[in-house]
Amino acid sequence: MTVTTSPDDDAAGWRARARSDVANVVREFVAARSRDHLGPAPETRVLADVLRRFVEGGKYVRSAFALAGWACVATPTASAVRAAGSLELLHCFALLQDDVMDQSPLRRGRPAAHVLFAQWHHEQHLSGSAARFGESAAVLAGDLCLVWAEQMLRQSGVDGAALARALPRYDRMRSTLAVGQLRDLVNDARRQPALRDVRAVARAKSGDYTVRGPLELGAELAGASAAVIGALGRYGVVVGEAFQLRDDLLGMFGAPDRTGKPVGEDLLARKATTVMVLARERADSAQRQELAELDRLPRLERSDVDEYLAIVAATGAREQVEGLIEQRLREGMAALSTSALPVDARHRLTHLADLCGNRDQ
Amino acid sequence: MTVTTSPDDDAAGWRARARSDVANVVREFVAARSRDHLGPAPETRVLADVLRRFVEGGKYVRSAFALAGWACVATPTASAVRAAGSLELLHCFALLQDDVMDQSPLRRGRPAAHVLFAQWHHEQHLSGSAARFGESAAVLAGDLCLVWAEQMLRQSGVDGAALARALPRYDRMRSTLAVGQLRDLVNDARRQPALRDVRAVARAKSGDYTVRGPLELGAELAGASAAVIGALGRYGVVVGEAFQLRDDLLGMFGAPDRTGKPVGEDLLARKATTVMVLARERADSAQRQELAELDRLPRLERSDVDEYLAIVAATGAREQVEGLIEQRLREGMAALSTSALPVDARHRLTHLADLCGNRDQ
Repeated sequence: MTVTTSPDDDAAGWRARARSDVANVVREFVAARSRDHLGPAPETRVLADVLRRFVEGGKYVRSAFALAGWACVATPTASAVRAAGSLELLHCFALLQDDVMDQSPLRRGRPAAHVLFAQWHHEQHLSGSAARFGESAAVLAGDLCLVWAEQMLRQSGVDGAALARALPRYDRMRSTLAVGQLRDLVNDARRQPALRDVRAVARAKSGDYTVRGPLELGAELAGASAAVIGALGRYGVVVGEAFQLRDDLLGMFGAPDRTGKPVGEDLLARKATTVMVLARERADSAQRQELAELDRLPRLERSDVDEYLAIVAATGAREQVEGLIEQRLREGMAALSTSALPVDARHRLTHLADLCGNRDQ
Repeated sequence: MTVTTSPDDDAAGWRARARSDVANVVREFVAARSRDHLGPAPETRVLADVLRRFVEGGKYVRSAFALAGWACVATPTASAVRAAGSLELLHCFALLQDDVMDQSPLRRGRPAAHVLFAQWHHEQHLSGSAARFGESAAVLAGDLCLVWAEQMLRQSGVDGAALARALPRYDRMRSTLAVGQLRDLVNDARRQPALRDVRAVARAKSGDYTVRGPLELGAELAGASAAVIGALGRYGVVVGEAFQLRDDLLGMFGAPDRTGKPVGEDLLARKATTVMVLARERADSAQRQELAELDRLPRLERSDVDEYLAIVAATGAREQVEGLIEQRLREGMAALSTSALPVDARHRLTHLADLCGNRDQ
């Protein structure tokens, strides 16, 4: 019997190892920081506990792209793994605060951090609003992740000169993240946001921070040439958009046992996603009227959500977004066809692009 | 006619110059970052506008201590001023998010940032809750200040080796700040917080972050000896406590036209301050009953606030806190009596201690 491994199997194995290496360093870093920076008081024990559980799980997409960027230049070192791990902590910051702002009760199928802090408030028989306390505590937990992420990157052991070159990119990425979240909130609050605005935010949030930013950061830390960074940038923009478009579809049509989110979560939160904005643009006058009636409901029951989803699907918006994802992935593959990137790096990036565009969670 | 200048006049002049130098560099940095990192969309224009106005004003206490720490070793350079200025941006982060968590409508006599963002939401006729949008936007503005503060410190031009030595202290200071705010929220929500817990938080929030932290950071960046840092640490702990105790008195008894806050603000927010906890401990049974009745009111009218203040004053808690402040300032002066500190540095620190303990705003 001959055993052959395909390039895709190799890439999948690489990805699994990267994920487990990163999960280990992030867990260790958070445990060490909790020991050093948090005290033994009950409220800091619950903070440490929520943070410990929060950093576990997750898709580890951003660290995978950072390591894939590094691996375009050299084999990732232990320092590279720590630098990549810092992006997962940065992502924890974003999720902790986004869940408060979006009032999302669930994260990865479990109660969101603000809900856990509110439960603790209740169990301790504290006075005042448990919900408000929970939200404040989750925002503060996010602040800690933002501070610790930067510390983890700075102390990763990556060469000082490379770090100094990369930090302005990191700063810009963090600003873009905060600004992207603000623009997202504004689009959600607009009665008819323009598709252009929604896609600009999607590019900023996912392109710059989920795919392109981590890829370029990893490559830059490893000392990549301008040709490599250029190719990764072109790939990152379109694959990042594919990632966000898939996110939008999953937020509407995803299976709750896979996404860890309730059915139609983005509808419940009245989020202005690409698929929703497209559906409104494509709707005929009858569909438009049905959507307007649903929009006016103060609360959505499960049957209202189903009706929403049926109308959105009937407009053809879902297929259109699927088509856009396919197109973006093809553009991403085209960006990889350059001699600047080693063959195994291209295989890994192809594998990661597929995960971004064709995942179910 | 002979003109003599007293050491205190010299120190006051030094303080005024430091304040104006810092205000300039912070304004310039925020303007540059707003240009680079925020886009031209309406929501980012209002963000830039709120941030610009927010960083102006303020007492510039933390930067003054950082420069005073530096000046124990050498004349502060332009880099020192930028590094000190970064602490004002860090303070903006804390204020922006604290005002959301405490639901404070005013900051320095003007609408708080979350109120301004809510007004903008209303003016733009956006859908959803304007108050929630305002709070989310203010949290995000705080995040930006946290990121920019660290960037301003890192890019201050301070010697790289000194910066590398000082950054772990900076990280610890930032963690302590977030944890201190969480512990504050918990104490506020306890029906009878212990004086020990309230004072521990006051020390963490003010000692480490307002006085001691900035002082030691400034001294360390300038290359201070262990003897200098030790003396500054001893001074910082007690003067920081005096600062917080004065804050507690101003939050209860301060004149609104000086503090920029409503009368009895800490009462309205049911904050567990040292003076309030002491008053509860000192109250006789009649006063205890009166306090319990006021505690049960769902909302406080102006006459209720006056009654609260009268009871607190009658318990003698106000005088006791005044006595504690005086004692801490004396201890601070004692810590300065060391040959490790130059004479003019001691004058400046005496002047700053007096400002901390005996201010009306």
